[in-house]
Amino acid sequence: MLFGKNENKNFKFTLMESTTIIENKIQELLKNFEFVRQSTEHICSFLEIEDYVVQPIADVSPPKWHLGHTTWFFETFILIPNLKGYKVFDPKYNYVFNSYYETVGARVIRTDRGNLSRPSVSEIYSYRHYVDEHMRLLFKDVSAQSELKDILELGIHHEQQHQELLYMDIKYILGHNPLFPVYSDKKVFDEIIREQVKELSFSEGVFEIGFQGEGFCFDNELGRHQVYLDAFEIDPYPVSNKEYLEFMEDGGYENFRFWHAAGWDWVNSNNVKAPLYWYFIDGQWMVFGLNGLKEMEGKQAVCHVNYYEAAAFAAWKGMELPTEAQWEIASKSLEWGHRWEWTQSAYLPYPRFKKAPGAIGEYNGKFMVDQMVLRGASVATSKGHSRNTYRNFFKSHQRWQFSGIRLVKSLT
Amino acid sequence: MLFGKNENKNFKFTLMESTTIIENKIQELLKNFEFVRQSTEHICSFLEIEDYVVQPIADVSPPKWHLGHTTWFFETFILIPNLKGYKVFDPKYNYVFNSYYETVGARVIRTDRGNLSRPSVSEIYSYRHYVDEHMRLLFKDVSAQSELKDILELGIHHEQQHQELLYMDIKYILGHNPLFPVYSDKKVFDEIIREQVKELSFSEGVFEIGFQGEGFCFDNELGRHQVYLDAFEIDPYPVSNKEYLEFMEDGGYENFRFWHAAGWDWVNSNNVKAPLYWYFIDGQWMVFGLNGLKEMEGKQAVCHVNYYEAAAFAAWKGMELPTEAQWEIASKSLEWGHRWEWTQSAYLPYPRFKKAPGAIGEYNGKFMVDQMVLRGASVATSKGHSRNTYRNFFKSHQRWQFSGIRLVKSLT
Amino acid sequence: MLFGKNENKNFKFTLMESTTIIENKIQELLKNFEFVRQSTEHICSFLEIEDYVVQPIADVSPPKWHLGHTTWFFETFILIPNLKGYKVFDPKYNYVFNSYYETVGARVIRTDRGNLSRPSVSEIYSYRHYVDEHMRLLFKDVSAQSELKDILELGIHHEQQHQELLYMDIKYILGHNPLFPVYSDKKVFDEIIREQVKELSFSEGVFEIGFQGEGFCFDNELGRHQVYLDAFEIDPYPVSNKEYLEFMEDGGYENFRFWHAAGWDWVNSNNVKAPLYWYFIDGQWMVFGLNGLKEMEGKQAVCHVNYYEAAAFAAWKGMELPTEAQWEIASKSLEWGHRWEWTQSAYLPYPRFKKAPGAIGEYNGKFMVDQMVLRGASVATSKGHSRNTYRNFFKSHQRWQFSGIRLVKSLT
Amino acid sequence: MLFGKNENKNFKFTLMESTTIIENKIQELLKNFEFVRQSTEHICSFLEIEDYVVQPIADVSPPKWHLGHTTWFFETFILIPNLKGYKVFDPKYNYVFNSYYETVGARVIRTDRGNLSRPSVSEIYSYRHYVDEHMRLLFKDVSAQSELKDILELGIHHEQQHQELLYMDIKYILGHNPLFPVYSDKKVFDEIIREQVKELSFSEGVFEIGFQGEGFCFDNELGRHQVYLDAFEIDPYPVSNKEYLEFMEDGGYENFRFWHAAGWDWVNSNNVKAPLYWYFIDGQWMVFGLNGLKEMEGKQAVCHVNYYEAAAFAAWKGMELPTEAQWEIASKSLEWGHRWEWTQSAYLPYPRFKKAPGAIGEYNGKFMVDQMVLRGASVATSKGHSRNTYRNFFKSHQRWQFSGIRLVKSLT
Repeated sequence: MLFGKNENKNFKFTLMESTTIIENKIQELLKNFEFVRQSTEHICSFLEIEDYVVQPIADVSPPKWHLGHTTWFFETFILIPNLKGYKVFDPKYNYVFNSYYETVGARVIRTDRGNLSRPSVSEIYSYRHYVDEHMRLLFKDVSAQSELKDILELGIHHEQQHQELLYMDIKYILGHNPLFPVYSDKKVFDEIIREQVKELSFSEGVFEIGFQGEGFCFDNELGRHQVYLDAFEIDPYPVSNKEYLEFMEDGGYENFRFWHAAGWDWVNSNNVKAPLYWYFIDGQWMVFGLNGLKEMEGKQAVCHVNYYEAAAFAAWKGMELPTEAQWEIASKSLEWGHRWEWTQSAYLPYPRFKKAPGAIGEYNGKFMVDQMVLRGASVATSKGHSRNTYRNFFKSHQRWQFSGIRLVKSLT
Repeated sequence: MLFGKNENKNFKFTLMESTTIIENKIQELLKNFEFVRQSTEHICSFLEIEDYVVQPIADVSPPKWHLGHTTWFFETFILIPNLKGYKVFDPKYNYVFNSYYETVGARVIRTDRGNLSRPSVSEIYSYRHYVDEHMRLLFKDVSAQSELKDILELGIHHEQQHQELLYMDIKYILGHNPLFPVYSDKKVFDEIIREQVKELSFSEGVFEIGFQGEGFCFDNELGRHQVYLDAFEIDPYPVSNKEYLEFMEDGGYENFRFWHAAGWDWVNSNNVKAPLYWYFIDGQWMVFGLNGLKEMEGKQAVCHVNYYEAAAFAAWKGMELPTEAQWEIASKSLEWGHRWEWTQSAYLPYPRFKKAPGAIGEYNGKFMVDQMVLRGASVATSKGHSRNTYRNFFKSHQRWQFSGIRLVKSLT
Repeated sequence: MLFGKNENKNFKFTLMESTTIIENKIQELLKNFEFVRQSTEHICSFLEIEDYVVQPIADVSPPKWHLGHTTWFFETFILIPNLKGYKVFDPKYNYVFNSYYETVGARVIRTDRGNLSRPSVSEIYSYRHYVDEHMRLLFKDVSAQSELKDILELGIHHEQQHQELLYMDIKYILGHNPLFPVYSDKKVFDEIIREQVKELSFSEGVFEIGFQGEGFCFDNELGRHQVYLDAFEIDPYPVSNKEYLEFMEDGGYENFRFWHAAGWDWVNSNNVKAPLYWYFIDGQWMVFGLNGLKEMEGKQAVCHVNYYEAAAFAAWKGMELPTEAQWEIASKSLEWGHRWEWTQSAYLPYPRFKKAPGAIGEYNGKFMVDQMVLRGASVATSKGHSRNTYRNFFKSHQRWQFSGIRLVKSLT
Repeated sequence: MLFGKNENKNFKFTLMESTTIIENKIQELLKNFEFVRQSTEHICSFLEIEDYVVQPIADVSPPKWHLGHTTWFFETFILIPNLKGYKVFDPKYNYVFNSYYETVGARVIRTDRGNLSRPSVSEIYSYRHYVDEHMRLLFKDVSAQSELKDILELGIHHEQQHQELLYMDIKYILGHNPLFPVYSDKKVFDEIIREQVKELSFSEGVFEIGFQGEGFCFDNELGRHQVYLDAFEIDPYPVSNKEYLEFMEDGGYENFRFWHAAGWDWVNSNNVKAPLYWYFIDGQWMVFGLNGLKEMEGKQAVCHVNYYEAAAFAAWKGMELPTEAQWEIASKSLEWGHRWEWTQSAYLPYPRFKKAPGAIGEYNGKFMVDQMVLRGASVATSKGHSRNTYRNFFKSHQRWQFSGIRLVKSLT
């Protein structure tokens, strides 16, 4: 079984019941599969063919690569080992669409993705539909495929992760084009509006964090464990653009005292003056979004800041970023889900974390170094893909994700 | 007048005659204009949209950029200053499609071209057709536009240069894709087949080189002047794949004695073993071309070698590369036109070379440093774009152009 | 007061007593000052003048820079603000010997240090002695200088840190010279010899970590706080060369499964096969040390591995690296002090960590990102400079420090 | 025989005479050998030990490397093959002090030289004296060593080349130190003062250039050959600081029209505003020299400009740089020898250039690509080391050599 997240549970159902439950579960997953596969294509339906191809920086992947890679996942981990007589769509695609799965063969060097004009977008859509057809074929007899439940569920969540990456990468591609092309004229995301409310207090004590329960989670959320927390206060809302602008106008980007040494180097090497996508035009801060270049809205949560900026803002404010544990304990009382919120916790394994065997085992563990955890979810996160135990992670300097800031204060 | 190539001529015609001659000349140029504009689009007609967009290395431009840049030339240097009431297609295009013309405003940093998904290919074709329409409008009254003859002619030759660049860049884009896509199944280029013939001898003396006559030439060919040459022998054919393979099999790439110090560094830093596009697959040398991956043909002229390789081959053979002057003097007796042939001459101004004033003056002179001259023309050169006085130039390490080798031997 | 480590204490002594105590403390510090200043020069007494000058990589500073920088600390933070009429030795030295103290003016870019042949070594020794003389002058009347106790103590500990850096940097400079020069023929460090003993067990519970008590500590050790720990076993000895060699011989450096993605990239980009300073010569592993190149000794603790290597070794062994808290709780029962031991904890502020105001506040806090904590001390650590609450830190890829590995195992 | 420079001569002397002449020649060479060896040490006698060690940029070698490398030349090419029973001073020195001689074994990567603190300066002086002693031993019986005349002569000239490199590198090391250390308080070089004189005219015709005669020359000067030159005027003096300052004050560094594209990139990437070693301090141009920082002297010849700057200055002036042939033909009438003068000629082989066999053959030929020729000599050139056929060469962007500008104008 993948990810071992139910390892310590007792299976008390009769075989009969259990089978029915699993069948129902698979039926539901297949519905999700169809929905997720369509949603990915819907996200891309607003693009020109040319937008699928480019890779302006190494962090950003061309949209067509996401389309292929998520498909490759189902082909490689479900169809090839399980569908008798399955013929791979194109044997070279493993090389082109593999990501970090070292066990599955040589991978394309990441920065090279933007050099590959082929396979064409239309060929990749054919690949998607070919794989979808064969997935339907394989799962025709649902009861026979009960052991594929976990990998199917993982594939769906994997594609949801790439849906958010698609939004991030599309925004980067359009937002770094001198023509500032509009992705869509319709509203794409629901934004939150900051309200003035009191901070929430939490007393000290031993708490439990980590995933438990019936639903899906990633391997890095497992290992529910106890932590000791001092008393703290936390802001129920993420920091707004207006608050962040005050930091900027108070010389936030010019005063090294607020910054980590590495952050200060980053500011100066890149001549940073504002969050990503902010442009000062004719005396007015403009912000690029999927609807194009618009006036900055003060009440919206600040977005596209990196860890250095989040930490510098907190230092300027005389407060701190929450730890993972503080965030998770407080989460039920917070307005969250609009920004990935930087925590003051590095991305490290929970106690008793174990890699799953095989290629799937590479999913999360191999990235547990040199990164920081972000909690919550963002406006770009797929529906049904957020949990208060979810551990997202990025490098300190990265800010093309929909990341924001929440503040805490120690009470001791 | 541009490029001053007729500076020393006497204009003895009556005004009447002269006007008629110029009108005829413009009529002919307009025919060429239409033909060249169509040819460029024909070259691109074999591409997928995705192929227009990528830029695998800084030297290679995305095909859609060539389409826009050649159009920008006509818009900027002919329509804007001469067509009353002309409205530019898009004011931002000057920024996107300007190349090296510092006088015309800020330019896109060259390596960034491959990051721009917009303007889309279809928008660029609209741009082309919009400019073509307005060119036809401007030249409706041919006699009124007589003073535009030279810049029109330059624009046409400029676009022909980019036609060859398109072939070079398309070949690079497809030839560096792991799927090795085929550009066309039909024959694209006429290749030459080496025959065994005697070397040609030339006696010592003072000769004249440089352009003279009625037709078009670039500014760098002007300044016809005398040179003294020692006696020499020259091979009537360029070096073949078979001969080059002998060099490889004799350890040519492993023996520093044949190489310049900079060439030897290049070989080792890049682990070079063969010309560009050569792949050793299952015991057989394969060569990528616009028809896809094919067996290497020994009798064809070797292609895609850089100056270091050409010079190393000559050193191995105990011969030399020709100087510009040797090549030009011998050219009438040579089989040339299939490969750009590396000379042993650096790209420097001829005596009395003068830059033209204004943006056009930047055309050639600013590149006259740190490059070597190649003479002849290649299979990818546009019809009517070759002359035995043509001075092409590339850096010593570049080899994505259709470049080959010709050998000479000193007779003293 | 610096570092605020006594902020929450009650001062109950009478002024009389207190003054005496402080005077005694200063007398003791001044003795330490003399000892530490001499020790630094003793470390360098084995060098040739040329060894003081070079900087083979950015991480390594030239020894003469350490001599100047530690002196600059006393001049800048003690003499200039406190010794009336003090004349700086050379006003340009602030530029040359400042390190990261942004508040004190422009600093030399770190990689440039190795380009500066002047000030000469002899000038720097004059600088040292000039500053030492003035320090003695300033502290002649000890009671008048009671308020300088903390900064004096910090300066002493700061110089001790640089003593270990001197050993690290000298070893790097000599160990990367093709002549493998010997620093000294006499024994420089006392090594530990691994014995076979049982692992130690610790039960779960809430524990306290962080500095408390009377002595000196750095700001990053403050904020003693509670943590919850699961039960665990820990090895009383660090991992030996012999054990590490088994990992190597079992293909440890060739199997990506043991490695973080970033670690695997590091191994392959740098073609790493063994710890730093290991050389395989004539069928024998040799290790470079301050006594020169010697046969590897299996029973000594492995040294000069980075976090990636430590984590890969633990993964291969099916164990883990300790967290900071596990290490500190277990420390009383461990053999420690011979290697800085990589923990599985990122270098982050303890709860309630506050930067001190002014330049001194930059001491530790600005580095609390993108690094891992190492605990213990090493053979190269100065006497009196180790504590079981000491938090050393390096980047995951760094290994020129005297770093080793200790293993733990979760018991739940 | 080396360099074949006498290949076409008839040896008509009787054996008796010839032997005596050669003996006398060797006696004279040995005197030169002693003088040159001492001169090198004299140049270094003004240095601190620390100055011998650093390498601020890849182009600059540490002075101690020059001391060792010139010695290595005599040991490798004269002592080892010719002195029976000679024991090399240290077998590892071949690795450390080899330069570009690929035939003699692996070489240190050039940028690494500045990382090597050992061998120490004192060891290198011992090496020098050891080799000098053995040279004297070998040449005790001069008549027996007659066949070593040419290699001895080459070694002497090789060391003279390194004497000028020593001045260049020492100036760079001291001139890039924030303390601006003085090399010597005494006058080091004799400067020329520009006088206002008329330009010299030369008529068109066929001329001969290249070395001929009895003395020493390098292989790249051989192959005396005919060239055709148009009529031209040439300035008898090199361009002065004052003239160059006019170019600067007329916006020379801000106007792309004067520059090659590569030169313009160089100006902007490096934010260049003036020649190397010029500093604008308190409203005054100061120039760093071996006597320290001094006021700029307008009448002295401008120094430390690269080819881009020289060509831009000429373009601004509406004149040109001379070709090699123009310079050599005019040289007898010129004031030359104070600056290496950039020519408009690329560094390419003369007709009939042949590499000598063996390691010595690498001397010049392997650098004949991607560089420009400079003619003349400089204030830093060793006595007896200049000829009007001497072909010095540097890359277009380099300017740490003592390079200046001379102007010509075409008369046709």
